[in-house]
Amino acid sequence: MTYCVGLKTRKGLIFMSDTRTNAGLDNISTFSKMRTWSNPGERMIVLLSAGNLATTQAVASLLEEQVRQGVDTPSLMNTGSMFQTARLVGSVVQEVIRSTAPVGQTSDAFSASFILGGQIRGETTRLFYIYPEGNFIEASTDTPFFQIGEHKYGKPILVRAYDADMSFEEALKLLLVSFDSTLKSNLSVGLPLDMQIYAADSFKPGPRDRFDRNHPYFKEISDGWSDALKSAFTRLPSLTIDFGS
Amino acid sequence: MTYCVGLKTRKGLIFMSDTRTNAGLDNISTFSKMRTWSNPGERMIVLLSAGNLATTQAVASLLEEQVRQGVDTPSLMNTGSMFQTARLVGSVVQEVIRSTAPVGQTSDAFSASFILGGQIRGETTRLFYIYPEGNFIEASTDTPFFQIGEHKYGKPILVRAYDADMSFEEALKLLLVSFDSTLKSNLSVGLPLDMQIYAADSFKPGPRDRFDRNHPYFKEISDGWSDALKSAFTRLPSLTIDFGS
Repeated sequence: MTYCVGLKTRKGLIFMSDTRTNAGLDNISTFSKMRTWSNPGERMIVLLSAGNLATTQAVASLLEEQVRQGVDTPSLMNTGSMFQTARLVGSVVQEVIRSTAPVGQTSDAFSASFILGGQIRGETTRLFYIYPEGNFIEASTDTPFFQIGEHKYGKPILVRAYDADMSFEEALKLLLVSFDSTLKSNLSVGLPLDMQIYAADSFKPGPRDRFDRNHPYFKEISDGWSDALKSAFTRLPSLTIDFGS
Repeated sequence: MTYCVGLKTRKGLIFMSDTRTNAGLDNISTFSKMRTWSNPGERMIVLLSAGNLATTQAVASLLEEQVRQGVDTPSLMNTGSMFQTARLVGSVVQEVIRSTAPVGQTSDAFSASFILGGQIRGETTRLFYIYPEGNFIEASTDTPFFQIGEHKYGKPILVRAYDADMSFEEALKLLLVSFDSTLKSNLSVGLPLDMQIYAADSFKPGPRDRFDRNHPYFKEISDGWSDALKSAFTRLPSLTIDFGS
């Protein structure tokens, strides 16, 4: 599996993805699941992927080829809006999955999901969740983040600590805590973690970082959060249980 | 779905289960998933169930009928050990699922899992996870708890805060926190929660309680844990992010 999160705040967008891919438990590799495209001053686009690696790589390669074909070919670099960008990615996803799944057979094995976010001049920042079927939904103030892959372990802290006004520093901390909970519970999600920030209205890639086991801040968060959870837990009141006679 | 946990400490066993069953999102009901049998002074047995309600009810009914048939019929009340009890339950699970699934069809829809725990005089407390196939595994000091149903949301806190020496009060708090995280993230798990304690070497049912929305201690834990998480999160250090020029 995989774990990726795209999160939208008033300050902009922040993305994080793990890098583990596996075909069975004894065949694991490291692949980045984060891709970015930018035309500084005009647009900045981030794509996170989860699912069949052949499918996600084919989708990314086709998107890249479209870009390289220049301005006359519709591509990520010349769509008129983020909505049109999501449609473009969705149609490529459809095409790849349809061409891989043999006729009449289920396409589940070739399935993949994507988080697409960014900003094109003239619009605000936008964030989309693209389904394997190629259709998609957009984040709103009610649902300001999307997760793909192993989303369950890391969801409770996102639900509780997210705040639309949080700084990028706070948002990074939140994502690292959410990923740490997932890493500690599921073997199919693995370090290092890729992080990309996009500051609203900057129209250029923001800070990017990679967090591995030895990254001092990741270690600080991972150890600190375990201790903080334990001490928060200890401070919660206990119920007196009556054991009778 | 469902969420049930059986947890083993040096003090004994503690069990918790939710009560929501659903056939689709618009057909939900409340059923207890916790059953107990005891012969005070000699044995105390707890069974938690997750999965197809028809299967779990049939398994419980067959186990009950065996008990009612008296001492000559092998039943939960006259097995020689908890291992033999797990075998008995496993064989009933096999029988029910096999008889329900039409020949040649997958039995996934009729699937069910169980947590079985308790103590029979002459043994220590024991805790088992029984699979739909009827085979089972036993908890050890390395894996001192079992979860069935929607286990992912509530696992991180169990992994981090469990301690074999914890009191029943601490263990109850831990289970309520784990269930609260699950309740907040998944609609298929619902209040009220059933709790059963078994104090080692007591050979009788320990305290039992039901926690609903208005239970003062459940409210205290649910609200308190959200606040504690947020403040623990706030106190974690932030990384200074360099946005360049």
